[in-house]
Amino acid sequence: MKTRIASAALAALLCAVAAPALAQEAAKPAAQVDFGNVRPPQPTSPYTKQAKALMTSKAFKAAKATLAAGYEQTVEDIVTLTEIPAPPFGEAEKGKAYLAMLAKEGLTDLDTDAAGNVMGLRKGTGGGGLLVVAAHLDTVFPASTDVKVRRDGDKLYAPGIGDDTVGLGSILAILRAINAAGIQTKSDILFVGDVGEEGPGDLRGMKELFFKGKYKDKIDAFISLEPSGPTVIVNGGVGSKRYKTTFKGPGGHSMGDFGTVNPAFALADAARQFGELKVPSDPRTVYNIGLLEGGTSVNSIPFAVSMTVDMRSSGKAELKAVEDAYLAILPKAVEAENAARSTKRGVISLDNKMVGDRPVGETPANSPFVQQLAAVGDALGKPMGYVAGSTDANIPMSLGKPAVTLGAGFVTFRGHSLEEGMEVNKARDVESIAVTMAQILMVAGAK
Amino acid sequence: MKTRIASAALAALLCAVAAPALAQEAAKPAAQVDFGNVRPPQPTSPYTKQAKALMTSKAFKAAKATLAAGYEQTVEDIVTLTEIPAPPFGEAEKGKAYLAMLAKEGLTDLDTDAAGNVMGLRKGTGGGGLLVVAAHLDTVFPASTDVKVRRDGDKLYAPGIGDDTVGLGSILAILRAINAAGIQTKSDILFVGDVGEEGPGDLRGMKELFFKGKYKDKIDAFISLEPSGPTVIVNGGVGSKRYKTTFKGPGGHSMGDFGTVNPAFALADAARQFGELKVPSDPRTVYNIGLLEGGTSVNSIPFAVSMTVDMRSSGKAELKAVEDAYLAILPKAVEAENAARSTKRGVISLDNKMVGDRPVGETPANSPFVQQLAAVGDALGKPMGYVAGSTDANIPMSLGKPAVTLGAGFVTFRGHSLEEGMEVNKARDVESIAVTMAQILMVAGAK
Repeated sequence: MKTRIASAALAALLCAVAAPALAQEAAKPAAQVDFGNVRPPQPTSPYTKQAKALMTSKAFKAAKATLAAGYEQTVEDIVTLTEIPAPPFGEAEKGKAYLAMLAKEGLTDLDTDAAGNVMGLRKGTGGGGLLVVAAHLDTVFPASTDVKVRRDGDKLYAPGIGDDTVGLGSILAILRAINAAGIQTKSDILFVGDVGEEGPGDLRGMKELFFKGKYKDKIDAFISLEPSGPTVIVNGGVGSKRYKTTFKGPGGHSMGDFGTVNPAFALADAARQFGELKVPSDPRTVYNIGLLEGGTSVNSIPFAVSMTVDMRSSGKAELKAVEDAYLAILPKAVEAENAARSTKRGVISLDNKMVGDRPVGETPANSPFVQQLAAVGDALGKPMGYVAGSTDANIPMSLGKPAVTLGAGFVTFRGHSLEEGMEVNKARDVESIAVTMAQILMVAGAK
Repeated sequence: MKTRIASAALAALLCAVAAPALAQEAAKPAAQVDFGNVRPPQPTSPYTKQAKALMTSKAFKAAKATLAAGYEQTVEDIVTLTEIPAPPFGEAEKGKAYLAMLAKEGLTDLDTDAAGNVMGLRKGTGGGGLLVVAAHLDTVFPASTDVKVRRDGDKLYAPGIGDDTVGLGSILAILRAINAAGIQTKSDILFVGDVGEEGPGDLRGMKELFFKGKYKDKIDAFISLEPSGPTVIVNGGVGSKRYKTTFKGPGGHSMGDFGTVNPAFALADAARQFGELKVPSDPRTVYNIGLLEGGTSVNSIPFAVSMTVDMRSSGKAELKAVEDAYLAILPKAVEAENAARSTKRGVISLDNKMVGDRPVGETPANSPFVQQLAAVGDALGKPMGYVAGSTDANIPMSLGKPAVTLGAGFVTFRGHSLEEGMEVNKARDVESIAVTMAQILMVAGAK
């Protein structure tokens, strides 16, 4: 069963879109990180003492003071970056600007990889491996979207300002803070502005980083920052499989060729069977028809119609089961239509294209990595909830590497909509960013 | 049973798209006029002698000589008019140009009505009532389509050149011919370039002419010219009902809101039931799903999805039966989806918009009007077939007025496609246009 705290956190998350003002504790709308099942928080972390020591240290306090002093700069950075369009597959300009910002904060080994990820290294003192801290450059909005930021009182509005430009801004703020405080870490930290996190990007930035790029076998742990407050750790990776399923046929005239197989009827048959699938609620498993399209005119039998579907689960076997069931339905629907109407002019055929493949993964809540992160909440007397999401962290999770997504420390709202925005509240946001900073320093081994 | 001749005519019609070169006798592709059931030709027309007399008269021969002499001008007119875009609801410029051409041929009472039909009168000697001869200005192509005519040997290519710009050109050719020959008619003839014949126009030009315009109660008979050779008389009007059926729901996130009603499943259910409907083959009755659309992204439960459907029959009761069956399916599919999934966030609802309504009609083959037209074929030893179509003539047919669609006299191909074209063959085309001219003169009472 879910605990009180975890349920409250989830409720806050799911309410975030509708009631942003109430969502300080967990501002990430469900539409941004795809939260799945919430797991109960663990008993108090064994690292709580260590977290307390870190957060009461002079150096940490100095860093936090820099977060506060630089808050306006951080907001300005977010505005600057938001106003550079970064549609899926069009992140280059924003990446270039972000790389220059990372360079200004003293990172070395500056690089733009083959996918378009931009990155720079903050060398550690040794013995801590390589930690990646990332936020994604891409937004869900097409290139033509007006991304000019509009300010209204304490709210800033612009598509993409929350998801995930606040993450990019937080990284800069944290870098400036730990640099100013002279905090060193055992780990090398690679700060990354990555591409392809949103739907059509299909995590191609992470796939480059972990499967192909020069750091591919060197990364020991991973944290991505997404728009959310400091109450949750996304340590479960919901897997997804997405298909654009097209039924093709010979087409024809609605009158002259009546009786000919019609791909719309095949699609309807498949869609209806898909809708009848039973899926488990634990691990949470879901499916959806998101898009329908096809045909040329009302009085033509379509040459092609398609549906784009999404299937997800935080269970590997359960994801495979729903995917297998879907894939089994399709040829049956094709056969049924070819049997129901005339195939003299041609048959119905299937063109099923995979358009998304996010692996299932999990970084166990009781692992040292997650417990070091949880310790920060415990030290503050605010235990964190654990949730499953669909983020950049899915890739390292699927490789068995310690990986989570944390809140970037701002309150945002209406993610993925044209009314997307963030609230500006210095005192509150500095506290939130400081939690994330403490978490990074915990796992990176602050000295 | 169908006779040999009628079957051959239909075969030629249905082959026209694939084999334009063979289609001289019946060049109208099924995609242009929506031919339904073919009825056998009647016994030799009682007007055959009269038709023979007309066609062997000096005046008629003089008119035919003018058709031949003016053939290049006619082709030029067709090219000029084709190159003026005339998408559905965008016929004004082409109409203006056509009205100027009609004016040049000496018509009086020039007018552009409220719908955009352009027209001019050729006064008769009296006692013959008012005959309308029309061709439609609109094409199926959107405004952005390249309508520049390309010539390749004896073929001219451009979207809309066949359907129905050849009809507009034929009217001009026939006017010039009968004017030059000094042929008078008992009937007043109103020549019309009309709007809204193609799908989305829903016959609005005819509806204006017959239900609202200044001639509404004065028209005694109607002929429209469409791209086809001289072998068939479209004396049956296939009725159609078209709906854009939208299923709406609360939408939501594919993961966070899984279990919520999804309008795509309701649509699928309705579409599948639609596909199972049994319809009679005599009178020919058909149905189609032509377009599917809806949804915002793969990982959103759609707010709305829709299908656009077409139902047709040349039988009034049969059309109503298939329409009633469709309309009965829709609320059942809505109810089923509302029962199958959660309606906590909102229910599935229906928004069913009629987007096409063409009445069923027929001008009996044994009526004097049709028999006067048939006499021209009989006089030439080439009896005509009777077919049902979906054209401008549907409106006057539905009012019980004598009305048909005749071939404009050119061989065209690939109607409604970007490869639409016409062949240029002077000797053949002049013979074909002369048949149409003779038919008009028969019913208008040439003196």
